Amino acid sequence: MPPHAHRPRPPHHRTGPDDVSGLEAAIAAGRIDPSGILAIFGKTEGNGCVNDFTRGFATQSLTLALARHIGPERAAAVCYVMSGGTEGAMAPHWTVFERVEGEGATGPALAVGRVHTAPLPAEHLGRTGQVEQVAAGIAEAMRQAGLTDPRDVHFVQVKCPLLTAQRIGEAEARGARVAVRDTLKSMGLSRGASSLGVAVALGEIAPEAVTDAAIGRDLALFSGRASASAGVELLGHEIVVLGMSAAWSGDLAVDHAVMADAIDVEPVRAALARLGLGAAGQLDAAARGRLVALLAKAEASPDGAVRGARHTMLDDSDISSTRHARAFVAGALAGLVGRTDIYVSGGAEHQGPPGGGPVAVIAQRG
Amino acid sequence: MPPHAHRPRPPHHRTGPDDVSGLEAAIAAGRIDPSGILAIFGKTEGNGCVNDFTRGFATQSLTLALARHIGPERAAAVCYVMSGGTEGAMAPHWTVFERVEGEGATGPALAVGRVHTAPLPAEHLGRTGQVEQVAAGIAEAMRQAGLTDPRDVHFVQVKCPLLTAQRIGEAEARGARVAVRDTLKSMGLSRGASSLGVAVALGEIAPEAVTDAAIGRDLALFSGRASASAGVELLGHEIVVLGMSAAWSGDLAVDHAVMADAIDVEPVRAALARLGLGAAGQLDAAARGRLVALLAKAEASPDGAVRGARHTMLDDSDISSTRHARAFVAGALAGLVGRTDIYVSGGAEHQGPPGGGPVAVIAQRG
Amino acid sequence: MPPHAHRPRPPHHRTGPDDVSGLEAAIAAGRIDPSGILAIFGKTEGNGCVNDFTRGFATQSLTLALARHIGPERAAAVCYVMSGGTEGAMAPHWTVFERVEGEGATGPALAVGRVHTAPLPAEHLGRTGQVEQVAAGIAEAMRQAGLTDPRDVHFVQVKCPLLTAQRIGEAEARGARVAVRDTLKSMGLSRGASSLGVAVALGEIAPEAVTDAAIGRDLALFSGRASASAGVELLGHEIVVLGMSAAWSGDLAVDHAVMADAIDVEPVRAALARLGLGAAGQLDAAARGRLVALLAKAEASPDGAVRGARHTMLDDSDISSTRHARAFVAGALAGLVGRTDIYVSGGAEHQGPPGGGPVAVIAQRG
Amino acid sequence: MPPHAHRPRPPHHRTGPDDVSGLEAAIAAGRIDPSGILAIFGKTEGNGCVNDFTRGFATQSLTLALARHIGPERAAAVCYVMSGGTEGAMAPHWTVFERVEGEGATGPALAVGRVHTAPLPAEHLGRTGQVEQVAAGIAEAMRQAGLTDPRDVHFVQVKCPLLTAQRIGEAEARGARVAVRDTLKSMGLSRGASSLGVAVALGEIAPEAVTDAAIGRDLALFSGRASASAGVELLGHEIVVLGMSAAWSGDLAVDHAVMADAIDVEPVRAALARLGLGAAGQLDAAARGRLVALLAKAEASPDGAVRGARHTMLDDSDISSTRHARAFVAGALAGLVGRTDIYVSGGAEHQGPPGGGPVAVIAQRG
Repeated sequence: MPPHAHRPRPPHHRTGPDDVSGLEAAIAAGRIDPSGILAIFGKTEGNGCVNDFTRGFATQSLTLALARHIGPERAAAVCYVMSGGTEGAMAPHWTVFERVEGEGATGPALAVGRVHTAPLPAEHLGRTGQVEQVAAGIAEAMRQAGLTDPRDVHFVQVKCPLLTAQRIGEAEARGARVAVRDTLKSMGLSRGASSLGVAVALGEIAPEAVTDAAIGRDLALFSGRASASAGVELLGHEIVVLGMSAAWSGDLAVDHAVMADAIDVEPVRAALARLGLGAAGQLDAAARGRLVALLAKAEASPDGAVRGARHTMLDDSDISSTRHARAFVAGALAGLVGRTDIYVSGGAEHQGPPGGGPVAVIAQRG
Repeated sequence: MPPHAHRPRPPHHRTGPDDVSGLEAAIAAGRIDPSGILAIFGKTEGNGCVNDFTRGFATQSLTLALARHIGPERAAAVCYVMSGGTEGAMAPHWTVFERVEGEGATGPALAVGRVHTAPLPAEHLGRTGQVEQVAAGIAEAMRQAGLTDPRDVHFVQVKCPLLTAQRIGEAEARGARVAVRDTLKSMGLSRGASSLGVAVALGEIAPEAVTDAAIGRDLALFSGRASASAGVELLGHEIVVLGMSAAWSGDLAVDHAVMADAIDVEPVRAALARLGLGAAGQLDAAARGRLVALLAKAEASPDGAVRGARHTMLDDSDISSTRHARAFVAGALAGLVGRTDIYVSGGAEHQGPPGGGPVAVIAQRG
Repeated sequence: MPPHAHRPRPPHHRTGPDDVSGLEAAIAAGRIDPSGILAIFGKTEGNGCVNDFTRGFATQSLTLALARHIGPERAAAVCYVMSGGTEGAMAPHWTVFERVEGEGATGPALAVGRVHTAPLPAEHLGRTGQVEQVAAGIAEAMRQAGLTDPRDVHFVQVKCPLLTAQRIGEAEARGARVAVRDTLKSMGLSRGASSLGVAVALGEIAPEAVTDAAIGRDLALFSGRASASAGVELLGHEIVVLGMSAAWSGDLAVDHAVMADAIDVEPVRAALARLGLGAAGQLDAAARGRLVALLAKAEASPDGAVRGARHTMLDDSDISSTRHARAFVAGALAGLVGRTDIYVSGGAEHQGPPGGGPVAVIAQRG
Repeated sequence: MPPHAHRPRPPHHRTGPDDVSGLEAAIAAGRIDPSGILAIFGKTEGNGCVNDFTRGFATQSLTLALARHIGPERAAAVCYVMSGGTEGAMAPHWTVFERVEGEGATGPALAVGRVHTAPLPAEHLGRTGQVEQVAAGIAEAMRQAGLTDPRDVHFVQVKCPLLTAQRIGEAEARGARVAVRDTLKSMGLSRGASSLGVAVALGEIAPEAVTDAAIGRDLALFSGRASASAGVELLGHEIVVLGMSAAWSGDLAVDHAVMADAIDVEPVRAALARLGLGAAGQLDAAARGRLVALLAKAEASPDGAVRGARHTMLDDSDISSTRHARAFVAGALAGLVGRTDIYVSGGAEHQGPPGGGPVAVIAQRG
């Protein structure tokens, strides 16, 4: 059961959320077998906040494209994890996770599991009901991927829903009370509860430590391997688990690091070195070519400062702090690896320590 | 004639453009002698674009504060170079350039010259008239600073004016025709012409190579040592020249680098090393403490890509590309030096190659 | 050949650009016959500027929905005129233009013609080549609609393309030179050239009066019946002509007015009265119910003032002036008609006098 | 004790928050006596949200200008009510409230009272402690103005503080707990508590009906005469009370209306008529000339709709809903009165019914 994580044609060929020409070309050339696609991660051009419709547009466009090859049912089963916001020089791109049988070196190697959960009632969002639903989903995804030891899991991507004025209205019309009425804030709470679901599933935190009151507040609780993005186009969760498993083979490997703050790049440098991509300064051209994906979370530090120096991200009413943080942390990480087609996702509530965040690296072994 | 570049209290103590308490405290404690202040560089909290009033507010507040110590006339002679836009985790802060007699080690050391030019007629903005006015100003500033060889100049900061709807209207009312009617675009043209003025003054480009048609278009023409910021509060230019001169002493030194693109941090690492701040990864705490200022220019690469990967900065109608670029490049440079109280200024027209920009570093010698 | 302009279910049921449930319900209930649909006008949730993908998302979603009923070929022939930007309290909504045979009162009545043009070469955008292509398209649309006298035409909607960094690059790669390299500015030039195409087609301006140099500059040239919107998802033009024709029947009628500035609502009040919707103050509930569509153009007055009082729209680098103008003019018109599900489209270059714009009203006759 | 509400030179002469030339010219020409100035209301160019420094810049500039005439102490006693946000075509302008002895017609006439409160502890913001402080301030301002019957009060303007990351940090450092940690949200809570303070002071609501839990939530509680703006530059409140008093004379009168929603302009038309400015459509030139000030509050209706049609203001993460609402309601009111130099202030929590807001009109009697 060997996996592959293909990348379609170079990301500058993608001209919008609906441009699937790179994927089509890779399929036409036989570089990607659409029947083996498990998940597609993407950075899309929107604002990454409540009214970002580029995620849904990309998902609709990818689903239509795959349906032409593998039919609508199997196309719908793929996990489309579209993270909005390509601030700064971050490049819009897709990363395709594909499973191919009978190929590659022997394991352990990158293993991929994925799960769709049921729709989440609006009143569970940002509460323990969401934590539990996500934790159960991860256990199922690990089982599917043949990952038995939580220590072998290096990254869990959760795409989670958010509240809109309408969803709040519907919930309140049936007598339910949502955790928050601010729609932008609901994204943060949803990401936070999902991430605590990861922490519980991976044994980083005891389930009983997670209460409704702690979600979004007790920032000492976090997962070092969770990545959560909220999107208006979802009602339930899409979960993708990445780990190392002897049941898989191939030349791909994954590792992870935790940044302590927005400029803490040295742990990422160390993770790169563990995967054979060690470098004193920026990665050289050869090493860059072996980097398959860098997946990171970013947030404005809630105390308003980085290493004692004030930042203005939380006081800016023109640009959401998530956009600021994505642009800045993408700059720090792109300066490290020498590439801008990286995946930096905003809002790192309970994902790494306050102001920091988890980073996963997937690389081709030498 | 030994110079000093003092930094007042840590930048997280500045709570807004009008917060001069850090400067006041440094004066009260005797760490800064207000009568020696030549220039104050600042990053302020606004959008760095046309309607950024934080630059003017900061300048008004600093001028008022200094006038209480040295009188309104001498306070007005100080060069206040306020660059708007602290995107990402960049910290609002001031850097005070002060000249003190009879102190410090023997030279060569950091030398500082400054000049205010006359108001620029609106119709000269973005044209050779502006280039010539700036070049003449630099020659005068070098003379003042005792800098005779252009090769000893490492950075020239030019604060230049922009066009507003009203200034355009006034120019047109007297029959003049401005180079551009788009006010945001006028900032770019003004920065571009100012930077070509630097290139001409430092001998990087022959004066006859600079034509009206080339300004803002022929990006092969650039200075590797210019930094220009446009501000609505100015009608003329404020020029500050930084270089190394044997006529100055003290423990401060300056050097520079040119980034070829938004993530080209290795030349900056080399400049740091030349100043005694060499490091394989991020600067350690000791080296950080000796870094006095990092002054950089950033811009979205006009070809829409970084190392072949598409960016979306130029197609984003919600956030100006200058804001994107500042956030991203500040991330790359802060990841290198481990500090966020750096000065990254947007809009690098004719400042370094397209998509890249000059960087100056001032450090305390060991 | 009697026409109908149906409106699907109330606009507050539309939750996003991809929500076609209102249209589906109207089809299911027999209120709309999908085979008669000529055009769908929509206001979508995006920023209405370069990176507004909600227009393309809505068009893709509507096309998919109609294809399920009438097949992909006929679905593709419908004119989808999606105008981005529902600033202020403007409601996202669709207006469906449908032609039904053998129904309704005798004419003259609302007549609708539509045309798709060929793709426009990037270097023609904003130049006379675009003017000519649009004028030819209108003549064809009038012919189709049985409109022979230009005086019977009350509104011409043109959806036109814009330049992106990539399209500029492609044009320049083959040696062509585009009229403007600023992508946001290209929207204005495209709208301007399209509107002058309307003016030429309707005999408002002599063809020889329109030169490349006049487009975007000579604001004395304008059409009182043009409405142009630019969208990144188009390469050619989509043209819809609305007029009164004896060849059509039904109870719908159209008229138009020209606002002289952003608050000049009295001409619109007069047009409403001519259609039987006269009122001293705001329309009462009965009159509101007979208003089928209000289609207007808005722009920031280029001289920076309204009736002598300065506005800040053109100096705001945080919010595009088109967004400001849509919000403000939508407020003025909604205050007049008592409804917020109106169509106010931004960027009125050569559409009405500078700072003003054309307005069309479609009403059910009593 | 006759009052005057002078307006300095036409607002299009104000080019920025620091442009006091119009006020200076009015003083120089003897049209305004600086020693009689009680308050200056202004609309400034910023975003009207947390990081809007134009309010502070305008206040600092006005204070400096007045200090040159009446000394720093009396200049500091003037109430500067700067409301940020001139969205749409709203014109930046000042309105000067001045008291002159021995002039004008006999009363009752416009009466003005003003008060500065002590700094508000951060943990009182948005709670009953703030309500009580504001109510006490109003009682004092009424007493000063000779207003004894609350029914004679037509408008109470309260400028109130907000929380910043730093103020929250300071409060938490001394063990206090603030009502909200989101700085933008703190503006709404502060406006809400201040407005309930007005309602209590004017007898619109019984004091015991206002609890911490009701503030910001129970929208059935509101004042029909309150207007509150939050600004980062304040630590306490500035309160200005406008009413009709027999103790005052002069030709100015004030009345008020309550808009039920964002397009409910008819009550304002009625208030204009009560002041002698009746008109079927838009005010004509003569009536416009007698309108001295229109002061209104605007907000996005919290249920996400206006008269059943959905709006997108609360789901927009690019533009704050307060900016949308100001632009739109300013359009509706400017369409009514035919002028754009009106004062529409965002955030109408507990000011009028949800989605609506109070409006005051000051006019010169015929």
